[in-house]
Amino acid sequence: MWLNTHYQALNEQYLFSQIARRVGQYKEQNPSARVISLGIGDVTRPLVPAVVEALNRGVEEMSKAETFHGYGPEQGYPFLREAIVEYYERRGVALDLDEVFVSDGAKSDLGNILDLFHQENIALIPDPVYPVYVDTNLMAGRTIHYIKAVKENDFLPLPDWDVSCDLVYLCSPNNPTGAAYSKSALTEWVRYTIEKGAVLLYDAAYESFIQEDGVPHSIYEIPEANTCAIEFCSFSKMAGFTGLRCSWTVVPKGLRFGGMGLNSMWLRRQTTKFNGVPYIVQRAAQAVFSPEGLEQVEATLSYYRENAATIQQALEQAGIYYTGGKNSPYIWMECPGAMDSWQFFQQLLEQAQVVGTPGAGFGENGKGFFRLTAFGSHEDTKEAAERLEKLLLQWKERG
Amino acid sequence: MWLNTHYQALNEQYLFSQIARRVGQYKEQNPSARVISLGIGDVTRPLVPAVVEALNRGVEEMSKAETFHGYGPEQGYPFLREAIVEYYERRGVALDLDEVFVSDGAKSDLGNILDLFHQENIALIPDPVYPVYVDTNLMAGRTIHYIKAVKENDFLPLPDWDVSCDLVYLCSPNNPTGAAYSKSALTEWVRYTIEKGAVLLYDAAYESFIQEDGVPHSIYEIPEANTCAIEFCSFSKMAGFTGLRCSWTVVPKGLRFGGMGLNSMWLRRQTTKFNGVPYIVQRAAQAVFSPEGLEQVEATLSYYRENAATIQQALEQAGIYYTGGKNSPYIWMECPGAMDSWQFFQQLLEQAQVVGTPGAGFGENGKGFFRLTAFGSHEDTKEAAERLEKLLLQWKERG
Repeated sequence: MWLNTHYQALNEQYLFSQIARRVGQYKEQNPSARVISLGIGDVTRPLVPAVVEALNRGVEEMSKAETFHGYGPEQGYPFLREAIVEYYERRGVALDLDEVFVSDGAKSDLGNILDLFHQENIALIPDPVYPVYVDTNLMAGRTIHYIKAVKENDFLPLPDWDVSCDLVYLCSPNNPTGAAYSKSALTEWVRYTIEKGAVLLYDAAYESFIQEDGVPHSIYEIPEANTCAIEFCSFSKMAGFTGLRCSWTVVPKGLRFGGMGLNSMWLRRQTTKFNGVPYIVQRAAQAVFSPEGLEQVEATLSYYRENAATIQQALEQAGIYYTGGKNSPYIWMECPGAMDSWQFFQQLLEQAQVVGTPGAGFGENGKGFFRLTAFGSHEDTKEAAERLEKLLLQWKERG
Repeated sequence: MWLNTHYQALNEQYLFSQIARRVGQYKEQNPSARVISLGIGDVTRPLVPAVVEALNRGVEEMSKAETFHGYGPEQGYPFLREAIVEYYERRGVALDLDEVFVSDGAKSDLGNILDLFHQENIALIPDPVYPVYVDTNLMAGRTIHYIKAVKENDFLPLPDWDVSCDLVYLCSPNNPTGAAYSKSALTEWVRYTIEKGAVLLYDAAYESFIQEDGVPHSIYEIPEANTCAIEFCSFSKMAGFTGLRCSWTVVPKGLRFGGMGLNSMWLRRQTTKFNGVPYIVQRAAQAVFSPEGLEQVEATLSYYRENAATIQQALEQAGIYYTGGKNSPYIWMECPGAMDSWQFFQQLLEQAQVVGTPGAGFGENGKGFFRLTAFGSHEDTKEAAERLEKLLLQWKERG
């Protein structure tokens, strides 16, 4: 009996437990302090009425023999896949129904998709990055090359054509940096992927936060991406489904290598190792795309966008470099002075009672940076932004 | 770029599409025929009131900011894991809370658990079998040894101590044969697994159908199983959750090999590649274990058990050998005469307008056998059983 010893190469996931430990310690020593978190990576607004109604109708159906639903299609009910295809159609992207796969989360699919690839493949992953891309490749023993995302390229690195690879990861708008690629930059990444005979794994989980024109919502807005890219998207941030669990993955039929099609391989993987998303959750997801649903989730997104703008204004007043916020719930700020991200974390906690996420938790290039998020309440975000601005200005005055 | 070429070793999953094609053809040629299916592998009774109420309460919570739930613990909320631990306690099995992992389906976990093992390991799998065990191992390029489940061993094979292996699959009560292992037989399998330094992957998805004393509901009723066995169980058949998606997997902390613990490896796998089961579904699952919930799901199980008894009686009247029914929703009957399972399928469809599942679809040793299921309505099951009995007796008279 041999275990998969590649698991030994994984680091402990200590980032958020470390944060919790430090915050807990501070609160214990300062019981009257009002600590506000700008580090929340989860939505906080409730499900919108259209979604709640769809859930209630679904539960009612499940309570009667005549309308009960048992096993559904593993890749999702056609009613939901049709709604997703229409969502793409509205921005000029044409997909076939069987290119869309409904699942329980982009995180699951981003991990499970690696089943389809040989473990000798080399993965190209930006740094800083959402840790799941790295860990899932380490678990399979794959070699990883990192792409430097740094201030000099505004955290939007372009391909280095001298470097070869097999799997390319991009996340736009990005977690943790909030930076979003332009159409021309993504066009270069698609060309690079095709030139290298690679597959682009494109994480679009934050696309619904995009406000600027010219920033693609889907990789398939780029010509020929349907011959090289798999797209992961989710209802989590778009419609507050983090506790309801529903996402989708697009695997175009144009992705073929050595006579094998990735679309039929993924179908085979999902029908063998997955049994679909709950019927009631799929009905809820369908309701997101109804006219009322879209209007209601747009209102929730605007709520978070106002928070992002509040944080951006504070940083601008204090003259701090940052990315994100405009097209993303994340704001990625440079730590002031020569502070590293954990030092800044501690100072911000102790002097302003505000919590955020040290950039070092997302990779080497995150070390002098700090992630703030727009998922709090208006009241808390406003107060935390004021405290942050005041502290940053104080430091500036002192030099 | 290399794909995982092991996918090419997979057979097309044509069993149920082949059945649908043949039934469709028959109906087209005989539009007035009333075809009844005894081949349903899915539950048909609605969710019980306790579960429906819990779902409604959960949806209500998700509709308000104060009680909204976003991301939950990947391994399941403590309230549900505690209820599962208590369920085991009632039959004398002691588990720690962190040995129980909630997920979206036994099928998912049975596939995903293989991430933890080296691909050079040899899998020992009974034949006939639930196809997922075979396919998930083929996808990883593993060698499979089959264990013969045949009439001579009443479809309950015991270990062959001359054969070595690393992963042992058992499903009891079995799909497709309905046969259930005794405590002494399972004790022998556990001893064999320990002797070989292997891991036992024990599928207990049908445990709630067990009626006979002396038939274990859990592998952990066997001494030392907590050093060698992982158990997969599900709310699907127990409480009609096939469309709601909730299951659990037990990975005892006693499973350690070469300094690595399978419990912490599975936790790492799930926290990296999974994001938990919907909050409302976990509340629904918790409600199954309430006094009302248990009483209500027991009534549904009794409904199916009556169907199983109806089918068993018909086969006994006709003097046909079968396994299952007593502790299982499946009845596995020998095809009469020298018919193979597809011939019998066609005869039964044409002469009695009854549909079942040819045993050949579950492996070599299923070829002269046929699977009937207890998931239909009382009325349909009664009529189909009468038609089946009549046909079998006619054939017997004719010799």
